Amino acid sequence: MSKNNNTTAPNAPQAVSAQFSEQIVDERLTPNPLSHFSMDKDALRLALVTAQYALRATRQQTPPTLNKPTGLLVLVNGMEQAGKGTAVKQLRQWVDPRLLKVEATIGDCPLAYQPIWQLHTKALPRHGDVMVYFGNWYADLLYNVMRMATSASKDDNKPSKNSKSKDKKSVNDKVLPIAQWQAYLQQQLLKLQAVEQDLAANQTRLLKCWFHVDIETLQERLKDGEADPQFLYQIDWNSKKVIETFNEVATILLRQQDDWIIIDGDDKSDAADQFCHEVLQAMQTALVSSNINTEKTSDKSETKKQAKQALKSAKFEPVKIPKFLIDIDDADIDKSDYRDALAEKQARLAQLLRARKGRHIVFAFEGMDAAGKGGAIKRLVAPLDPREYQIYNISAPMLYELQHPYLWRFWTKLPNEQTDRISRIAIFDRTWYGRVLVERIEGFATDDEWQRAYDEINRFEADLAAAGTIVIKYWLAIDKKEQLKRFEARQETPHKQFKLTDDDWRNRKKWSEYVQSAADMLARTDTEYAPWCVIATNEKRQARLDVLDHAIKQLSAVCSS
Amino acid sequence: MSKNNNTTAPNAPQAVSAQFSEQIVDERLTPNPLSHFSMDKDALRLALVTAQYALRATRQQTPPTLNKPTGLLVLVNGMEQAGKGTAVKQLRQWVDPRLLKVEATIGDCPLAYQPIWQLHTKALPRHGDVMVYFGNWYADLLYNVMRMATSASKDDNKPSKNSKSKDKKSVNDKVLPIAQWQAYLQQQLLKLQAVEQDLAANQTRLLKCWFHVDIETLQERLKDGEADPQFLYQIDWNSKKVIETFNEVATILLRQQDDWIIIDGDDKSDAADQFCHEVLQAMQTALVSSNINTEKTSDKSETKKQAKQALKSAKFEPVKIPKFLIDIDDADIDKSDYRDALAEKQARLAQLLRARKGRHIVFAFEGMDAAGKGGAIKRLVAPLDPREYQIYNISAPMLYELQHPYLWRFWTKLPNEQTDRISRIAIFDRTWYGRVLVERIEGFATDDEWQRAYDEINRFEADLAAAGTIVIKYWLAIDKKEQLKRFEARQETPHKQFKLTDDDWRNRKKWSEYVQSAADMLARTDTEYAPWCVIATNEKRQARLDVLDHAIKQLSAVCSS
Repeated sequence: MSKNNNTTAPNAPQAVSAQFSEQIVDERLTPNPLSHFSMDKDALRLALVTAQYALRATRQQTPPTLNKPTGLLVLVNGMEQAGKGTAVKQLRQWVDPRLLKVEATIGDCPLAYQPIWQLHTKALPRHGDVMVYFGNWYADLLYNVMRMATSASKDDNKPSKNSKSKDKKSVNDKVLPIAQWQAYLQQQLLKLQAVEQDLAANQTRLLKCWFHVDIETLQERLKDGEADPQFLYQIDWNSKKVIETFNEVATILLRQQDDWIIIDGDDKSDAADQFCHEVLQAMQTALVSSNINTEKTSDKSETKKQAKQALKSAKFEPVKIPKFLIDIDDADIDKSDYRDALAEKQARLAQLLRARKGRHIVFAFEGMDAAGKGGAIKRLVAPLDPREYQIYNISAPMLYELQHPYLWRFWTKLPNEQTDRISRIAIFDRTWYGRVLVERIEGFATDDEWQRAYDEINRFEADLAAAGTIVIKYWLAIDKKEQLKRFEARQETPHKQFKLTDDDWRNRKKWSEYVQSAADMLARTDTEYAPWCVIATNEKRQARLDVLDHAIKQLSAVCSS
Repeated sequence: MSKNNNTTAPNAPQAVSAQFSEQIVDERLTPNPLSHFSMDKDALRLALVTAQYALRATRQQTPPTLNKPTGLLVLVNGMEQAGKGTAVKQLRQWVDPRLLKVEATIGDCPLAYQPIWQLHTKALPRHGDVMVYFGNWYADLLYNVMRMATSASKDDNKPSKNSKSKDKKSVNDKVLPIAQWQAYLQQQLLKLQAVEQDLAANQTRLLKCWFHVDIETLQERLKDGEADPQFLYQIDWNSKKVIETFNEVATILLRQQDDWIIIDGDDKSDAADQFCHEVLQAMQTALVSSNINTEKTSDKSETKKQAKQALKSAKFEPVKIPKFLIDIDDADIDKSDYRDALAEKQARLAQLLRARKGRHIVFAFEGMDAAGKGGAIKRLVAPLDPREYQIYNISAPMLYELQHPYLWRFWTKLPNEQTDRISRIAIFDRTWYGRVLVERIEGFATDDEWQRAYDEINRFEADLAAAGTIVIKYWLAIDKKEQLKRFEARQETPHKQFKLTDDDWRNRKKWSEYVQSAADMLARTDTEYAPWCVIATNEKRQARLDVLDHAIKQLSAVCSS
């Protein structure tokens, strides 16, 4: 609207231009990399297919040791009719199309009780793969913001009459003043950026391409009948007002996230060429990061970074082990008292779970072997209908799971509104905390990886909590003597023999390392939104009641409000 | 309605009682296996958990050689309020709940262009797992039939006024006379039974439990407020007329399929006990069939069966190799003629694909290495938007895929209306025919397995075709001399080197075995609903045109009608 925009900080949404700022294009329109490469088309094709196969080849059939195969996820977003389809079509012609996955889901509303990105994790590329993703989490976000913004703009001038009745509506139907949807957009963008950084750190790199055309070109192309209504965003592209709002939204997006490549779709063929060059460059970067040896011998700044990391690793300070992890001191309870208390608590828990108003629940159980996770879970689910929950028994990842970020196998097991009609309670018997427990101790994760994981896990749980998922985490604490007693009992009891494996004895030898790791984990991931509950479990019966008590307490705080 | 029902053959639906036949319960109510086992509850629990762990232990971490781990899928269907939830809850308490998966999807309408079972294949248990599945394909089928039947009964007495306009409605909205929905039901039941037999033959056994209560008990329980509306079938269980229709449908189902265990839900606790016993028995049967050694040394009837199978295997008669697989004789085409023809045919193909009225399309490409599958696919997809199709490059299965029936990894890649919004064309570069090609030749499948596969594959494709999916299959035929030429060219051309692997040279040594296997495959799986098209590919350009020509021909027949 005015020259002021040019100096607007990303955090000042109210000053953003309603028109897609020419200035942002000028500032940010990525120079056509053709000039860097000065490649002809044949050379580009050869380079593309070479990079594609080389990237694939970094993926070994056995778990990777010498290199870190990296996947490439190409996000394609932007204005309608800006040449996205043409560009991806050309890419698919120039590479081996059989090795290029193209996914498209379009403008679905973010689901009520899960983070925007969650639904899309199923589609992430395996390490070594390249995938083009139309209609990704940004399409969902834009769709949602457009719904908010267009309803908002309709009511802009009217005074809000019925502010009370609004509160009852879901987030999607709310009519929001501009400042509010802008705040929502900015907050979501921050979260997505954090998710994307964690993806990149875990061998899934992103290339984000934003295709742009001006309103006049768009309207011409729409008239041409080139547009296939199936591919439209469910946004009315014929309305100038709607497009202006879209550009306003896009401006905020592009100002806040500086990792978008802006591609000018004015000439679809040029746009396609630029897109192919960008993908080539991204594949080459992914190749470099796939190869640990290359990393080590690469330029100085890389060496510096590594020195810095080494320093950071050296600086990791284990916490002092708290008493409750060593001196397990819990009272026994009389059997008939236990039964009464159990029945009462189970009834109360079931009542609370059913009053949770659609929210998802994630239970996370960690603890030493034989600490009673199985028994506690059994009592927890007893009052529930078997269709209401899923239990995931987590052990070593399978090969296809190792070909994704370590959190991937948990992302894809979360309650999912799109596919689970009833079961919205997920119970994990062992969890993503394996990263900072067994993977740390056995060396399956590097120092850098497991030390970084505390923050990654905190961000993951924060996102769940922000979306309305209730995360309940338990550490079941047992002492070494009691564990031995239980191992021996398992050996002697026919229907418990199966529970005892060689791994259990092996882990027992590393007892003190596990206690230290648990202490570090509890100190670093006990958050307000996903607090840990440590349960002393030398006395099984009391422990089971304590597990129920804590769930009741945490749910009461949420479900009664 | 009359005594006549008692002698009704399964194929005479018109005579089936409108009330759930008491007689069918008397005939078929499975004797409570408690009497066989005379086990107390503790013994049953121990037996259950023992069987559960033993079954899981049959699953090895490396591809199975000595045993054939078997999965168990427990289907739970029947009348509402008949104790299904109680029974599964008890089972889950008595086994290790962490190893028992419970899935529930409820009464979705079968999707328009895919077989009823397809959507559910994603949920099938891995070999060695036990899974309870509420709301399985029978729930979908019953829901659909109930919609047909209840609309039908409303219009029973009215003469059909507008028979023409009906044809335009989708299958779900059709108002059908009783005979018609019964015919639909019976036909679907036959298909599902065939699918289930193929599952069982491929290490996924089924236990089908039908829970029943009479109308009076149902109505009492509905009044009790025990019923959770979330779990109802989207059927109005309060209407006596609706329940009568449901019983009528159930009678047809149970008469036609004699592998249902009918469980009387009059006493929910007894029903739960019986259910647990049935699951135990099924797990034990699965254990027996998991162990090849046991099979070999088991009773006489088993030995006889094996002798019979051996005879059958011995009787497999390879067909004479047809000329078109050996003498590859195709004309070359001038380059500019080729370009013109290509453009024209691609345009025609795109036009036909877009006129297919929502149907799914499956392209299957098979052929010797270097026969030009990749090139043909490239030309095939050239006119399409990259979001309209998926290409699947099939190679050796991963471990988790081997833990399912061999068709599973293809079932789960078919176009899926529930999850793919746009991409409804699936192109397979190598296919399920690997079972009768590489797996036959390399011994990855036993003689019995690959010989049985012809029928299994035919049934699979028949189901797809019946649901409206168009299946287009190509064998690209090349001769041995031309293959060598192409291998050598690949070695010399930088951007083609990646295409040549050691496997290719190894396969070349088995040339004649591949030709024989191809001949047998073409002879046994060239069906009316999914015909093979053999393309001579010594001349690449002409071959690519031929591929397009055939697709155009097959689509014209369907899409213009």
